Amino acid sequence: MKAVLVLNAGSSSLKFALFPLEPGLAANPALSGQIEGIGATPELSAKEANGTRHHEPVVTHGEQGEQHRDALTHLFRWLAAHNPDLEIVAAGHRVVHGGDRYSAPVKLSEGLLRELDAFVPLAPLHQPHNLRAVRAVSALMPDVPQVACFDTAFHRTQPAVAQAFALPRAISAEGIKRYGFHGLSYDYVARKLPEVIGDKAHGSVVIAHLGNGASMCALRDGKSMASTMGFTAVEGLMMGTRTGSLDPGVMLYLMEQKGMSAKALTNLLYKESGLLGVSGISQDMRTLLASNAPEATEAVELFCYRIARELGSLAAAAGGLDALVFTGGIGEHAAVVREKVAALSGWLGITIDSSANEAGASRIDAADSRVAVAVVPTNEEGMIARYTVELLDL
Amino acid sequence: MKAVLVLNAGSSSLKFALFPLEPGLAANPALSGQIEGIGATPELSAKEANGTRHHEPVVTHGEQGEQHRDALTHLFRWLAAHNPDLEIVAAGHRVVHGGDRYSAPVKLSEGLLRELDAFVPLAPLHQPHNLRAVRAVSALMPDVPQVACFDTAFHRTQPAVAQAFALPRAISAEGIKRYGFHGLSYDYVARKLPEVIGDKAHGSVVIAHLGNGASMCALRDGKSMASTMGFTAVEGLMMGTRTGSLDPGVMLYLMEQKGMSAKALTNLLYKESGLLGVSGISQDMRTLLASNAPEATEAVELFCYRIARELGSLAAAAGGLDALVFTGGIGEHAAVVREKVAALSGWLGITIDSSANEAGASRIDAADSRVAVAVVPTNEEGMIARYTVELLDL
Repeated sequence: MKAVLVLNAGSSSLKFALFPLEPGLAANPALSGQIEGIGATPELSAKEANGTRHHEPVVTHGEQGEQHRDALTHLFRWLAAHNPDLEIVAAGHRVVHGGDRYSAPVKLSEGLLRELDAFVPLAPLHQPHNLRAVRAVSALMPDVPQVACFDTAFHRTQPAVAQAFALPRAISAEGIKRYGFHGLSYDYVARKLPEVIGDKAHGSVVIAHLGNGASMCALRDGKSMASTMGFTAVEGLMMGTRTGSLDPGVMLYLMEQKGMSAKALTNLLYKESGLLGVSGISQDMRTLLASNAPEATEAVELFCYRIARELGSLAAAAGGLDALVFTGGIGEHAAVVREKVAALSGWLGITIDSSANEAGASRIDAADSRVAVAVVPTNEEGMIARYTVELLDL
Repeated sequence: MKAVLVLNAGSSSLKFALFPLEPGLAANPALSGQIEGIGATPELSAKEANGTRHHEPVVTHGEQGEQHRDALTHLFRWLAAHNPDLEIVAAGHRVVHGGDRYSAPVKLSEGLLRELDAFVPLAPLHQPHNLRAVRAVSALMPDVPQVACFDTAFHRTQPAVAQAFALPRAISAEGIKRYGFHGLSYDYVARKLPEVIGDKAHGSVVIAHLGNGASMCALRDGKSMASTMGFTAVEGLMMGTRTGSLDPGVMLYLMEQKGMSAKALTNLLYKESGLLGVSGISQDMRTLLASNAPEATEAVELFCYRIARELGSLAAAAGGLDALVFTGGIGEHAAVVREKVAALSGWLGITIDSSANEAGASRIDAADSRVAVAVVPTNEEGMIARYTVELLDL
């Protein structure tokens, strides 16, 4: 079986998916899974398309770089053992940051890797791990072509005003601008959208990617016009544990009045805030929706309110609103969140069909809704596989 | 002449205005002016209603507190010398912060002053000077009743979601929330608005207060529903020298990668950014509009784009948009800014009448505009005088 291997490497995890290269590309992987706990007690778990599940421990050695290479070595041996006729024809990587320069996936080379190293300070939590996985694959399977698919690339169509902060020119020129993220998800959903809502997909659209990380994107004719996430993945919407947008004066206050360091602030803003911080209960929307605690309700209400506010702002960026699309774990599964957002957004011409919404239909707007409202499951791995096949002309 | 004295005390300046207590209150002051340069070479300048101007040096002594008292003493002597029959019946103060508690002006007392001292950490650049002026007036004219008019009070009608950050509950409970500012201006304009746009004033309205400091406010039935300025006056719109909203991750980056301190960040965000930082030319909108430099154009375009984005977000907070109102120095005088904002906001049903706009009319929407668009000059001093008279029943 010829297949494209999709890899998404984090600091302690390595997600993978294997897309068979059929005539055309399979929409869903034959096999997907992850090695988690790298650096501690790593374990491989995988699921085949037919539902069969696999679990096994992984042994790694040495420093972080070696551990990741050991994990990848284990994965390749395991894949070969379970798929004797497997031939990996290409590897597609999720690489979080393509900087200002890359507006499309690119074939990886030593020279390009060195260039992408320069973006590490822009995404220190993700970029080094993404690139380490590329180098490990190069070492283990030097003949397999590799492709980098950037989370930022889809947003390079945004007008300059949407990417700019009102900072001094010299600072902006250093690359401190709004890059936007979740681009693989937005591109996937945007390509799928005409099947679901027809011509409105080419108009003014806002996609809400609501997962543990959450952002929204304004599109016109399928191209990104603005996004709520900017320079980093903490801006914009309230998330599972992240604040989203925050008055910069709050940070100055916390530094001056409480002596908080950059590290303490990072922890506060990324790990202790959002749904978890406001509820004091959980970062998981399912838990909060199942709770009767007023703090849980408060967190959910704020989450939905922030989406509705950003929807207005993004409609301005798109010059109107023809369609609203939900995706991501919360967007796809939390009917209550969709209903609350729609209720706050009636002024935009949004009315949803409650039973379609509760049933999880792909079109959930009511017959008299001026704006189409859709739910489109995202597929970032599928998008990476497709980019890889397209770019390498497989 | 019986009159209400309005005072707005800053770190190095003391603005004043004298409103005659006619049957009813005069809409405009008989006399207004300021003592500037306190701490350096202070000078009093004043202008009478008939246009006569006065200038003279002021001598102050000692520490900052004494200098302010000396400046006030000078002012009172000067007022008495120029208005032999003047009787100051009350003093109304602009006090920036009324915290969570004060949703209306209050009569000042020793006990209240101590309470307002507690808000100094929330507005360290303004609150101490505001309160110092109150104490100086108490010392110099102990029998004159004084009223505190808060910039934050008007916004206390906002729903909890509009005031909340997605921070941990314990931090929010300490008072880290969105207070909003420019409330005196919004209240003045909101009270004036029915004269200008009729019934739409009671619907969903957004007021853009665009001065060197700039913010916007969403109102429903004349009450604040949300504002772009939050915990501090640096959030929201791009301003003369302030960034407005900024990805919190940018601040973390500047701290970690450039070792910037709270002081350096405060200076960057408050003093070196905004129109000045983006243009590299000036913080003054008039200068930028008169310039052909592409950097000036870029700054103006970003300024207007940010207004249009916030307009969408605030319309969401107001549940729609029946009227858009411009006020403040830029809002009242920069027809080009109003035109650009309107052009970006056609999707909301805004169309302006270009000649009315250029002529500086008070109604500038075109006949076919669904949304009323108005220009209403603000009058914060007049609002303070009116609050003072109303509260003291003068």
